[in-house]
Amino acid sequence: MNSGEQTVGEIGELALLDVILAELKTPDCATVANGDDAAVLRHSGDTVITTDTMIEGPDFRLDWHTGFELGQKLAATNLADVAAMGATPTVLTVAIACPPETRVDFLRQIARGLTHACDRLAPGTAVVGGDLATAKQLVCAVTALGEMCGRKPVTRSGARPGMVIAYAGLLGLSGYGLQLLAEHGRQEAERLCPRALYEHLTPSAAVSAGVTAAEAGAGAMLDVSDGLVLDAARITRASGVRVSLSSEQLQRVNAGRVDPPGPPLNSMLYGGEDHGMLACFQAASVPPEFTVIGQIIAGRPAVLLDGEELSGSGWDPFQNSGNLSSQAP
Amino acid sequence: MNSGEQTVGEIGELALLDVILAELKTPDCATVANGDDAAVLRHSGDTVITTDTMIEGPDFRLDWHTGFELGQKLAATNLADVAAMGATPTVLTVAIACPPETRVDFLRQIARGLTHACDRLAPGTAVVGGDLATAKQLVCAVTALGEMCGRKPVTRSGARPGMVIAYAGLLGLSGYGLQLLAEHGRQEAERLCPRALYEHLTPSAAVSAGVTAAEAGAGAMLDVSDGLVLDAARITRASGVRVSLSSEQLQRVNAGRVDPPGPPLNSMLYGGEDHGMLACFQAASVPPEFTVIGQIIAGRPAVLLDGEELSGSGWDPFQNSGNLSSQAP
Repeated sequence: MNSGEQTVGEIGELALLDVILAELKTPDCATVANGDDAAVLRHSGDTVITTDTMIEGPDFRLDWHTGFELGQKLAATNLADVAAMGATPTVLTVAIACPPETRVDFLRQIARGLTHACDRLAPGTAVVGGDLATAKQLVCAVTALGEMCGRKPVTRSGARPGMVIAYAGLLGLSGYGLQLLAEHGRQEAERLCPRALYEHLTPSAAVSAGVTAAEAGAGAMLDVSDGLVLDAARITRASGVRVSLSSEQLQRVNAGRVDPPGPPLNSMLYGGEDHGMLACFQAASVPPEFTVIGQIIAGRPAVLLDGEELSGSGWDPFQNSGNLSSQAP
Repeated sequence: MNSGEQTVGEIGELALLDVILAELKTPDCATVANGDDAAVLRHSGDTVITTDTMIEGPDFRLDWHTGFELGQKLAATNLADVAAMGATPTVLTVAIACPPETRVDFLRQIARGLTHACDRLAPGTAVVGGDLATAKQLVCAVTALGEMCGRKPVTRSGARPGMVIAYAGLLGLSGYGLQLLAEHGRQEAERLCPRALYEHLTPSAAVSAGVTAAEAGAGAMLDVSDGLVLDAARITRASGVRVSLSSEQLQRVNAGRVDPPGPPLNSMLYGGEDHGMLACFQAASVPPEFTVIGQIIAGRPAVLLDGEELSGSGWDPFQNSGNLSSQAP
């Protein structure tokens, strides 16, 4: 029997670990890697850390995502959070809990996807450790580290009136892809708009733009995980400012990279998981990969579109629990 | 209604986060803490990272552990892995996934336990970030970081013939506590041997001994998570040596700190989760908090007790899945 068709319960933890380790690389910064109580890393400057969990049901569906895609999504999400501080990502750790009947090949593909996304989005970065366990449903908890290399961290609180707000990466495609998946299932979503589908399954995540923005003196930054409006609102609250977006400028974000008409404006405003960088700059300092989409203005925190205040809409895993799994594919 | 009696599904993620953040401290090394895409830490020397998952069923039972105890156990387990490299622990990140019907107070108590164990085992260390999500069962994934402060990492591969092997911390109590819990339930276990019960629920974890050992020039070290014999076998394989343990010396480990007769020899050899430090030293360099329990000798990797080779016994989460939850309380 080919080990790929076996289940993790059949081959056990040690054999499974060998399968997974064969798909991983050693990160550039590691002086002690997998195989000891802990890994040891050489960072330049301060260390950045973020963690995120993805769970079968609320966060992904096994009939929508292959293991290879899920691995890429796990890496992209966490690398983007590190990049959004202006840091250079260095390593990931990955804790996976899954039912014993999970196929070995599915976990092998997750590992392969993690490595693929690291190579593509942040070369030199790799998985340096992790943990395997059993659970009733698939749970993946990823922690990502980065190094500041002497740069000043870019928080959410440095947006000031007079700055512009700009975005690097694709916008609204991932959310539109999710909508197509939920309404039509994977096969039909792929026919209707493959670009949106794949941005949802394996987000491009504008990781390298994070360092660029920090070097250009960005005053505030985050990556768009929960939708442009909700994430922009986080900057307004942390900085005590208003963000005034322009729908005309927003339409330029995807121009030249996505066939017209592109995702609907609603997906650009409220769709999440694109993991592009949303940053505020002095107008003269916007790096070329960023597109200006609005202004920072004084006043009570709020997000405006063409002068009208938008009501934010949030994602709450507890109050929305299971909504993906209850939708028909 | 008191928020402690509400469920996480009732109050939602943002309110839950406020409850949890109120129980956390800011770690000494953080320059940017909770509330941004990622935290930023100032480490002295190289950075150490480890991750571990605990899952309801295979790893703990909610009728055995209070939230406060579970939080302490989560912290102790991960702090010990950092310490076992000879590093000073600095921060934890904690990803928790739980059913929406989980009581808010249970998660508050986990947070309180995490902070309590950090204060007790590694002052200055604290939880610097995390993630909350919903799942069918409680899953806790913890990542711990540490700083080498210029010390050389102590791996598993530096044990050499002529060294002694020594242990710091309590040995066999946690495993004995687990056995009592499984055989008699919590109330009776508490009556029979409270010390063993509480070492299982909230391990003492000899965290500070890790740095002491590194400074004394330890050649190899790990923390005893899976049982002395199994963990000693890891040193023998990584270093290409044999470990020869003495039952007479082993009996001295707990002397003066545990009322006689102490845990059975079997628990000392095969019980895990004490999280004491097992380290190899030149005989003249053993720090006072370590008790010599044997010798490193040349030969094919194996663990011996009083000259007889022991067969190791391993813990495989996939091949032992659910064994705790299937045991009668």
